Amino acid sequence: MDRVGIPHMTPDEFRKRGRQVIDWIAAYMERVEDYPVLSQVEPGDVRAALAEHPPATGQDFDLVMADLDGVVMPGITHWQSPGFHAFFNANASGPAILGDLVSSGLGVQGMLWATSPACTELETHVMDWLAEMLDLPETFSSSGPGGGVIQDSASSATLTAVIAAREKATGGTTNHTGNLGNLIAYTSAEAHSSIEKAIRVAGIGADNLRSIEVDEAFAMRPAALEEAIRKDLAAGRRPFFVCATVGTTSSTAIDPVRDIGEICRRYGLWLHVDAALAGTAALLPGMRWIHDGLELSDSYVFNPHKWMLTNFDCSAFFVADRAALISALSVLPEYLRNKASASGTVIDYRDWQIPLGRRFRALKLWFVIRHYGVEGLQAFVEEHLRLTRLFASWVENADNFELAAPAPVNLVCFRHPGGDAVNRRILDNLNASGDVYLSHTRLDGKLTLRLAIGQTHTAERHVRRAWELIQAAATA
Amino acid sequence: MDRVGIPHMTPDEFRKRGRQVIDWIAAYMERVEDYPVLSQVEPGDVRAALAEHPPATGQDFDLVMADLDGVVMPGITHWQSPGFHAFFNANASGPAILGDLVSSGLGVQGMLWATSPACTELETHVMDWLAEMLDLPETFSSSGPGGGVIQDSASSATLTAVIAAREKATGGTTNHTGNLGNLIAYTSAEAHSSIEKAIRVAGIGADNLRSIEVDEAFAMRPAALEEAIRKDLAAGRRPFFVCATVGTTSSTAIDPVRDIGEICRRYGLWLHVDAALAGTAALLPGMRWIHDGLELSDSYVFNPHKWMLTNFDCSAFFVADRAALISALSVLPEYLRNKASASGTVIDYRDWQIPLGRRFRALKLWFVIRHYGVEGLQAFVEEHLRLTRLFASWVENADNFELAAPAPVNLVCFRHPGGDAVNRRILDNLNASGDVYLSHTRLDGKLTLRLAIGQTHTAERHVRRAWELIQAAATA
Repeated sequence: MDRVGIPHMTPDEFRKRGRQVIDWIAAYMERVEDYPVLSQVEPGDVRAALAEHPPATGQDFDLVMADLDGVVMPGITHWQSPGFHAFFNANASGPAILGDLVSSGLGVQGMLWATSPACTELETHVMDWLAEMLDLPETFSSSGPGGGVIQDSASSATLTAVIAAREKATGGTTNHTGNLGNLIAYTSAEAHSSIEKAIRVAGIGADNLRSIEVDEAFAMRPAALEEAIRKDLAAGRRPFFVCATVGTTSSTAIDPVRDIGEICRRYGLWLHVDAALAGTAALLPGMRWIHDGLELSDSYVFNPHKWMLTNFDCSAFFVADRAALISALSVLPEYLRNKASASGTVIDYRDWQIPLGRRFRALKLWFVIRHYGVEGLQAFVEEHLRLTRLFASWVENADNFELAAPAPVNLVCFRHPGGDAVNRRILDNLNASGDVYLSHTRLDGKLTLRLAIGQTHTAERHVRRAWELIQAAATA
Repeated sequence: MDRVGIPHMTPDEFRKRGRQVIDWIAAYMERVEDYPVLSQVEPGDVRAALAEHPPATGQDFDLVMADLDGVVMPGITHWQSPGFHAFFNANASGPAILGDLVSSGLGVQGMLWATSPACTELETHVMDWLAEMLDLPETFSSSGPGGGVIQDSASSATLTAVIAAREKATGGTTNHTGNLGNLIAYTSAEAHSSIEKAIRVAGIGADNLRSIEVDEAFAMRPAALEEAIRKDLAAGRRPFFVCATVGTTSSTAIDPVRDIGEICRRYGLWLHVDAALAGTAALLPGMRWIHDGLELSDSYVFNPHKWMLTNFDCSAFFVADRAALISALSVLPEYLRNKASASGTVIDYRDWQIPLGRRFRALKLWFVIRHYGVEGLQAFVEEHLRLTRLFASWVENADNFELAAPAPVNLVCFRHPGGDAVNRRILDNLNASGDVYLSHTRLDGKLTLRLAIGQTHTAERHVRRAWELIQAAATA
């Protein structure tokens, strides 16, 4: 302590308490299956157990850890449990946690190249690695006019894409004049809610987002897209942006990117591809068909924080033309000017995102890729694909369940033929049991159960157990 | 390992490697002053030392740690050094790092209350604690119609405020129709670049952001604001949003929030107050004058990740009417519907921000507040204010330097009377020395040096040393 009265944690105390927390996490890893996957607390339970006022003086670390166990843990829904099959997985891993810990310890702010060159350069580097690992088009490599950046979420990446597309479509005028009301965006009826949110935020307005119909596999119909674009053009409106989805949230439907991309080229629209969950599957050469036509896209996002063992937040966003992004997002006040930026030889990632500040998130991705190696990550994803096919085959062969959609990646959509009320009851029973956590969607208007297989330690025995529980709930 | 061929880190390996990383950080804390504060690498140096391709198979953890030392560390600008006086500080602390580590270990996703009730409830709780600690107006407490949320940055919080204000001003129509071009926003000529960025992103357009003149202390002139509003109204435009700054980035100027707030009430404008850096000063009763009139504001942001020992990212955003926020940002797809949300008794923070996903960031803030206690945090801030006054007094009494602005918080703006070239040379020499890192701004058109005092371990000896170096550079 440099100053009397300020109870900083000394490096020695940090060593001691750090080990305590590391041990706590290791024990959590060991016993995560003992917890109910879905938290069973009622609204207000957690707050009621917390001290009403902040403490006047500092408290012992053990007291905080005791409350972590006693108050916080009952209120945790265990995303890291192998029984977590809801939404999409957000898997983590030892190396990711430790890479993130190094980032917290360094506490650097990578808004400009100069404010930590390694934060920027390692990020550019691992983004190029990712492009190589997924065999993404050359256009997304930093060696050309494009490149990659880590954002917090696919939502933010999509918003960034919309802003860049808006600016490009209006010849750089929207930044000055604001949106003037006739820009039109397109996405499928099955696209993620973040598309509408981005369109709203950008001042385009949800009325100007066309919801394009899907085929029987819930993928966008290119012919319907083209028809909608023509109709808008005929009415004097300005089509500017299409979001295709590779792996929708409801059912992992794969939009035909090549057909959509050709239409976008024909009419001069920005094509953004949202592969938030499914992109990771392209680690496997046999799965790269999901990206067919991606070289026609202007931007692309997938989330290593979903299925690539890198804990949230780590969303990988690529653009084919970084100039469009930077001209849309750069505002340069005097206090951020510096020689390196002025030289034009460096990347300042602040101009590739909405926020100014940024964490050193590349570290965790770098730790993960080096710890697992490309083959280790491939083996990980391949096993989940196998388990998904296995589970889908059980559903297909069962008398009392049916597949509700194709299962091309790591999600199975299925339902009991008894109707919404029966499926709702099955879901509620499963989730109340604490053994597994599934979520639902609606496909063809019908309530549908979703089982995602992507947690770090989800193995065949967990999937078998889930199926047994589902069968038990169905016959209860 | 559950599966052959997937090299997961076992809990035991995690214990071992976790200790290694904890020890590495503790050693970094001990030797941080030995590094040049501003990284001395040239563009491309870091990338040139990294492996060109990702490894096919997993590598030993020691190899990664060796590259961390050998390749990454030379490219780090040491924000945690006591000699870091550039921009604004982004201080961290042991308890914050460990709270964040717990968050990484749990790996939960707090988008909905149900997806981890503790993530939401602890956040609401510590935000109420913060409101109490800073004596913020009752309007921002979760017990009424308002409340707080943690965002990644003040930039994102300001964008969120703009979106909510836009929606409210247009009676909930912009979400549907898009911005129609006549909304006008106001901020001072000294406001942060994130205001313009938010106005651009929201489709309002920078031409519709009025830059209001400042007084001799660089604070917004309320009379000029009112005049600008009247002029726009007379021209048939729709004034909707004002951003006042409590502690500008250039010089920590404090806009007169009460006067501005009264004008906003009179004309029905949303008042957002950006106190990103300075807000923390209100921990001290003697500094609460900076928030005078805050009860007239609709939203407020300050960053515990700047000056409250909580590592980035942790930006505290408060609104007086959460309904306005939620109606602007909520999009509810089937796959996110759940009983708790439908009951209306819980908060779903996804509707309080742009992204959908969210980390458990409340943990680090909770760890910090409990470890230091309110009095520990007050002592911390008070010492920095004392050091700032001390440094300002040296400048005032020096023959060869002058104060360029008042120093009400923890930043001193000063310059050599010799003109821009001399000040530029002094700055470059200081930063090349590696002993300290200062940044600059422009005030009254003149290049001005900025010395911010807010790092975790910045003590009187560091500030004295900085002054000696500045004097040496000036007389060189």
